[in-house]
Amino acid sequence: MNKRDLPDTANRPDDRNIPIDKVGVKDIRYPIRLLDRANGEQRTVGSFNMYVNLPHSFKGAHMSRFVEVLNDHRGAISVDSLFEMLRAMRERLEAESAHVEVEFPYFIEKEAPVSKARGLMENRCRIVGSLQGERQDMVIYVTTPISTLCPCSKEISDYGAHNQRGVATIGFRFRGMVWIEEIVDIAEQSASSAVYSLLKREDEKFVTEQAYANPVFVEDVVRNIAQRLDAHPDIVWYGIEAENFESIHNHNAYASLEKDKRDPEAGDWQENII
Amino acid sequence: MNKRDLPDTANRPDDRNIPIDKVGVKDIRYPIRLLDRANGEQRTVGSFNMYVNLPHSFKGAHMSRFVEVLNDHRGAISVDSLFEMLRAMRERLEAESAHVEVEFPYFIEKEAPVSKARGLMENRCRIVGSLQGERQDMVIYVTTPISTLCPCSKEISDYGAHNQRGVATIGFRFRGMVWIEEIVDIAEQSASSAVYSLLKREDEKFVTEQAYANPVFVEDVVRNIAQRLDAHPDIVWYGIEAENFESIHNHNAYASLEKDKRDPEAGDWQENII
Amino acid sequence: MNKRDLPDTANRPDDRNIPIDKVGVKDIRYPIRLLDRANGEQRTVGSFNMYVNLPHSFKGAHMSRFVEVLNDHRGAISVDSLFEMLRAMRERLEAESAHVEVEFPYFIEKEAPVSKARGLMENRCRIVGSLQGERQDMVIYVTTPISTLCPCSKEISDYGAHNQRGVATIGFRFRGMVWIEEIVDIAEQSASSAVYSLLKREDEKFVTEQAYANPVFVEDVVRNIAQRLDAHPDIVWYGIEAENFESIHNHNAYASLEKDKRDPEAGDWQENII
Amino acid sequence: MNKRDLPDTANRPDDRNIPIDKVGVKDIRYPIRLLDRANGEQRTVGSFNMYVNLPHSFKGAHMSRFVEVLNDHRGAISVDSLFEMLRAMRERLEAESAHVEVEFPYFIEKEAPVSKARGLMENRCRIVGSLQGERQDMVIYVTTPISTLCPCSKEISDYGAHNQRGVATIGFRFRGMVWIEEIVDIAEQSASSAVYSLLKREDEKFVTEQAYANPVFVEDVVRNIAQRLDAHPDIVWYGIEAENFESIHNHNAYASLEKDKRDPEAGDWQENII
Repeated sequence: MNKRDLPDTANRPDDRNIPIDKVGVKDIRYPIRLLDRANGEQRTVGSFNMYVNLPHSFKGAHMSRFVEVLNDHRGAISVDSLFEMLRAMRERLEAESAHVEVEFPYFIEKEAPVSKARGLMENRCRIVGSLQGERQDMVIYVTTPISTLCPCSKEISDYGAHNQRGVATIGFRFRGMVWIEEIVDIAEQSASSAVYSLLKREDEKFVTEQAYANPVFVEDVVRNIAQRLDAHPDIVWYGIEAENFESIHNHNAYASLEKDKRDPEAGDWQENII
Repeated sequence: MNKRDLPDTANRPDDRNIPIDKVGVKDIRYPIRLLDRANGEQRTVGSFNMYVNLPHSFKGAHMSRFVEVLNDHRGAISVDSLFEMLRAMRERLEAESAHVEVEFPYFIEKEAPVSKARGLMENRCRIVGSLQGERQDMVIYVTTPISTLCPCSKEISDYGAHNQRGVATIGFRFRGMVWIEEIVDIAEQSASSAVYSLLKREDEKFVTEQAYANPVFVEDVVRNIAQRLDAHPDIVWYGIEAENFESIHNHNAYASLEKDKRDPEAGDWQENII
Repeated sequence: MNKRDLPDTANRPDDRNIPIDKVGVKDIRYPIRLLDRANGEQRTVGSFNMYVNLPHSFKGAHMSRFVEVLNDHRGAISVDSLFEMLRAMRERLEAESAHVEVEFPYFIEKEAPVSKARGLMENRCRIVGSLQGERQDMVIYVTTPISTLCPCSKEISDYGAHNQRGVATIGFRFRGMVWIEEIVDIAEQSASSAVYSLLKREDEKFVTEQAYANPVFVEDVVRNIAQRLDAHPDIVWYGIEAENFESIHNHNAYASLEKDKRDPEAGDWQENII
Repeated sequence: MNKRDLPDTANRPDDRNIPIDKVGVKDIRYPIRLLDRANGEQRTVGSFNMYVNLPHSFKGAHMSRFVEVLNDHRGAISVDSLFEMLRAMRERLEAESAHVEVEFPYFIEKEAPVSKARGLMENRCRIVGSLQGERQDMVIYVTTPISTLCPCSKEISDYGAHNQRGVATIGFRFRGMVWIEEIVDIAEQSASSAVYSLLKREDEKFVTEQAYANPVFVEDVVRNIAQRLDAHPDIVWYGIEAENFESIHNHNAYASLEKDKRDPEAGDWQENII
């Protein structure tokens, strides 16, 4: 029995008259390659969700076609290639809209502040892209580990101040080119100190004193980031989250804010679509 | 040195002129008690996120007050008590808006279909409530494990059909009273078969044959649920997700849709706010 | 067709001649009740793994019987009831050995050090029990969140010192009665400071200064705990792990050690079996 | 102030007289390269734990040296390079024993059984290596997703049979060269069917019928694997776990067994050390 003879259940009409917003495959991991400011290319592992819409008149989507599209793109991830993947999904699945999410660890070589010893730091990234009719959209999220020292604890205590690891997640829409490395810099500059994989004793002294000199609440982290993103000419929308793994509590402190820099009245919204 | 003498850093003015959408505590676990259709009360463990907005003129929120509010409510979780908690958060934190999320396992005693043997099944619930000015909102999410058998595999194969565990998550806004148990029933009726903690051999025969007689794609699960929620008089908005842990793949099949049954033109939106 | 007529596949002989160490059910959640030093009883949610051995001559275990045993015990968790559960598993499954693991959050009401404000703190516990012939064994693991301040950072820095949240996990075998609360106390006394769910400003000053006055490496935490467990008359074996979520790194610092206080030469091993 | 002037707190003597089994860094991620049977080399991302012992007379370990060793090896992971890394850890940290664990996703290109369509499948691997005096040891764990169809359900039901995704984890000690790909093959041959990332309709028919023709309990999976590992000339010890994500339950079925094929009486143990 060959393929042509097999009934195609998914292709049948459906009379429930209910369109489906998203249908597809979730949690599929694939090796990926992407641009890296320092080395030209970085190889890492992505976890993908790939969806299209399903009109009310179709019973099901052909799920294997998502994996074929993923395969065809062989793991090259860039702004352009993601939109190509979205167009291929829409075409192969005969849909009006397509949506892709990919999450991956991204490594940046960092120099310790005094010893200049070098080590790789992991950041987490997530890219969410979609096509709907003529409209295309992409948001890139970068999660940067940071160090925060509590201003209140410093001020009220005779010595010391509680501090902790935290994470800052910056989501942004953009025009032009924005490097992941720029976003990581913005997050680190907005904290009490950056974190590192490799610190020698002289570096540990430096980051300890730097953090003590720059106390920030989780609220300050999101505001400091917002100021820097406001000043960035290529970022047109942003959403910021900061979370502190409080060293004095078993729960976390959290702050978030979101801003659209585009002016819809001026037709600015349209222009800035990627 | 007593409390009055300690400087209050968080209370200071802030001149960056950036309001914060959400600030608060995240991932704090607390024992909770809630209404249970069968037994009157159920005790379980909730994981809370509690946030308020922070106007641009304040430097920080007083994080300990969130935990005080949580403590004062002593774990009684109901629609009314969550709105009370939100009002208390808004007042204690001097904010305009308040937001709370609580996630917990919820147990329902279930009878096996033939043997009538009884066992407890775990469902996951999440309640998201918010207050903003006069507007209050609540969405309840219920995640139900289900069994799905693939219609395509059944039709094209000479014998057998691949099937798997899946989960259906139903989020809903409501008027009146809707039991978690009703939502679980709707999810189970929309699948190939329910899943159970305890099945004897005669039950296993029953659910195997029931699933084979009721093949559904993940797309069918969300549509079947949508039809039932359309018919439910007390549900005014819903969002549905279904995910199959495919037995023939190492990734999942996914579908989702969302619908607002309220008519904003008719002022219906206002009426239906809880 | 009734149960008696259904073939019992699992009960068939197996000729591969391979005994199985553990067979059973994994990741089944159930509400549990256990003894609580402050309030008499605590209700929480346990996640169970339940296994027996399978002799080489049998094809399979009757999995539903594990859930029946769990059901019969209705969530009462104590040293005695866990051994009853193990005996019931062994009998119902016709096995020689039985093994149960249950993990759960355990809540302790804690007073802030200065304000005496009260809040609940979550600790994670895990109990591993087994029966093998005449030999019975039980290990209780308690994971306590702690705060640690780095001695090196304090010594080399002109001001401040990096500190962070960490966790200490203490596993122990015992004779007599040992409260979870005692183990939590030991972990907290071995750290730079305890952590709390609720701290007012005067408490924050206290714990900041307390941590600064008591710097500990992760190595010190496990050694301090070991000294206290050595002195505990009812603890006969222990395994200790400590992990710091370093505030200056994106990885954790870790230390572990294990000690058997029993003297096998003196037949001490036998005596101390619970 | 340069490095020489900074006090070295970790290097101080300790008088508690308590040796520590393992001290080091945990959960540090790094890009890695390893041998791949099909393509020569595979790039992926590893998560490392690196520990040494700490004699009772030292206060602490120099944690930054672990990261330096990791850096020096630049992510090349092989049996030889892991033992080099262990020797470097032992030397740099002045320890008697060293221990490393690395976990990573490993991708294998697989052909669908009928259409021959190709897609990448993710397996999870973990390598645990240690050096203690002259003794060196390595265990490789490979986790393979599989499909299992219940023999009992098939036998008692008039049509259909419940089946599900599962995972088989094979840990092994070896002499000579054993490919990850060989271990994956053994796991897949011991299940009802392999799982795939990409299956066309004709393949779905094939795997559905193949699984129906090869029903296995979780007990059968571990025994089938054990028989194949018994026959493998280069595997000298194994530990096997299988877990089914039951499609009719919300919990998993589990089986495990372990076997040492070496004969300690014959001095065989010594010989087989890698």
